[in-house]
Amino acid sequence: MSMQTDFRALDKNFKSRVEASFANQPLMGFIGAKLAIIEPGFCEIHLPYRFELTQQHGFFHAGIIGTIADNCGGYAAFSLMPAESSVLTVEYKINLLSPGDGSLLIGRGKVKKAGKNLTICVVDVFVVKGGVEKLCATVQMTVMTMHEMMDKPVDTKA
Amino acid sequence: MSMQTDFRALDKNFKSRVEASFANQPLMGFIGAKLAIIEPGFCEIHLPYRFELTQQHGFFHAGIIGTIADNCGGYAAFSLMPAESSVLTVEYKINLLSPGDGSLLIGRGKVKKAGKNLTICVVDVFVVKGGVEKLCATVQMTVMTMHEMMDKPVDTKA
Amino acid sequence: MSMQTDFRALDKNFKSRVEASFANQPLMGFIGAKLAIIEPGFCEIHLPYRFELTQQHGFFHAGIIGTIADNCGGYAAFSLMPAESSVLTVEYKINLLSPGDGSLLIGRGKVKKAGKNLTICVVDVFVVKGGVEKLCATVQMTVMTMHEMMDKPVDTKA
Amino acid sequence: MSMQTDFRALDKNFKSRVEASFANQPLMGFIGAKLAIIEPGFCEIHLPYRFELTQQHGFFHAGIIGTIADNCGGYAAFSLMPAESSVLTVEYKINLLSPGDGSLLIGRGKVKKAGKNLTICVVDVFVVKGGVEKLCATVQMTVMTMHEMMDKPVDTKA
Repeated sequence: MSMQTDFRALDKNFKSRVEASFANQPLMGFIGAKLAIIEPGFCEIHLPYRFELTQQHGFFHAGIIGTIADNCGGYAAFSLMPAESSVLTVEYKINLLSPGDGSLLIGRGKVKKAGKNLTICVVDVFVVKGGVEKLCATVQMTVMTMHEMMDKPVDTKA
Repeated sequence: MSMQTDFRALDKNFKSRVEASFANQPLMGFIGAKLAIIEPGFCEIHLPYRFELTQQHGFFHAGIIGTIADNCGGYAAFSLMPAESSVLTVEYKINLLSPGDGSLLIGRGKVKKAGKNLTICVVDVFVVKGGVEKLCATVQMTVMTMHEMMDKPVDTKA
Repeated sequence: MSMQTDFRALDKNFKSRVEASFANQPLMGFIGAKLAIIEPGFCEIHLPYRFELTQQHGFFHAGIIGTIADNCGGYAAFSLMPAESSVLTVEYKINLLSPGDGSLLIGRGKVKKAGKNLTICVVDVFVVKGGVEKLCATVQMTVMTMHEMMDKPVDTKA
Repeated sequence: MSMQTDFRALDKNFKSRVEASFANQPLMGFIGAKLAIIEPGFCEIHLPYRFELTQQHGFFHAGIIGTIADNCGGYAAFSLMPAESSVLTVEYKINLLSPGDGSLLIGRGKVKKAGKNLTICVVDVFVVKGGVEKLCATVQMTVMTMHEMMDKPVDTKA
């Protein structure tokens, strides 16, 4: 599947760069999140239901929904950044619209404005139940380009 | 340790009610978070460093920082709610001020205004490194009281 | 001009109700704002440039951009509310994307989720220069329905 | 009156620099706002009630409350910036806690973290009625330092 966006990537290797960064986030493996789609200015992440990710009513925890949203927005922005750069979340604001009641979370982040230093993204997070997607959260966020500061592989502290 | 706040709890059993709700969030056990302090209108949560909770630079992931903040604010608000009620996060906005570089996260949430239906909280999250606390995130959030809708034990779906 | 939206108004007199509320906001007349379009779940407001509305660089002040956004979101939400209700802004978050450099501000607010008590809206504000619209701000907001509390005409305190 | 803050100004002429910028915002004169206090990392602005600044219930309009908050935060941040710089609001998030029902608005903005490029501020806005201050809004915002880009006098376009 491919998303059409109005953006062009500065770095032709943006996909492998984003994939490598995602793979280097131990949290993504820990919760079981998958990078599903990365296109210029767009990122989609999937997270299957696990009991360990829930709150007191058995639904996806708001913090987990925020985590997925943060990464969708961050990587949508990162896809447009120069090769020699790193991505930093400045801030995000999340509205929780419906309980995270379902078997899968799907986050879709889009760049709204890509500036030299700051990029603004919007992210919708959907929960899938019985094959039907329902909007469960919406996010507006600000991401910063850290120029000439490449993402490094995680020091495993081993 | 006890925090002095200007609020009085409506429900004299607020501590055990918050503790039970926290214990009923599987995510808290999964990431290793501890409810450290609960007072009327105040909640402090601790989360020790684990490799699994980090992002690509080896620091606490922004989503995890947001998760701790969400619970600090939510439970600060919940402490002031009537016995027969449940708590729902409407929205939060988080600014990430410093990398989550340290051995422990400490979140401290305070109620700023408790209304009949909506409660506004502010939360600061600190990261501890070498025994020194550093502010790493600040949050402003809106929480809703769900009247006559008690927190239920999680259905284990077993 | 008419906008197609997916929403249906509960109150068939929603247009005149919104128009009356807008007309009853002295601030709108003071700054010269016009209610341009009101449809179910959508509101567009126009504000021509005036020197008095600017900041130190001669552009529309961020606070004025926020004011237009607040009303676009508030009235988009109000259009869907029952006849016997009033509208209250709970909170909004605004990102300023470009300077408000132009001859006209156009705000367009849309309802994203209309709940019984809380409605979530997104608003884009554009600045028009030389006939070209440029996105200058984007807003995510939460609005509350005040049931059985009708908007009253302003007491003129005359 | 003087506020004690933990910050030190880089520019010993910060007061006159902030005062000049404030005086160069035509909107401040138009609505009748006064710069009451400026200290390193702190700014207080006063705005007396005027019928023209109200919404449909006769209270200060949320957009006006946001305008005062934006300037309090922006100038608290600007007080700490180098002499050769300008200030830009990146984003703000405002919670409206009580109606703006009173004879005077008082906004108080404080820097929470001053970085090289981004500064995070919190602002409380109070409404005074019968001599009593009541918290009516609270704001969290992000401000950018525009290095080597001095505030210019407004081009009057006359």
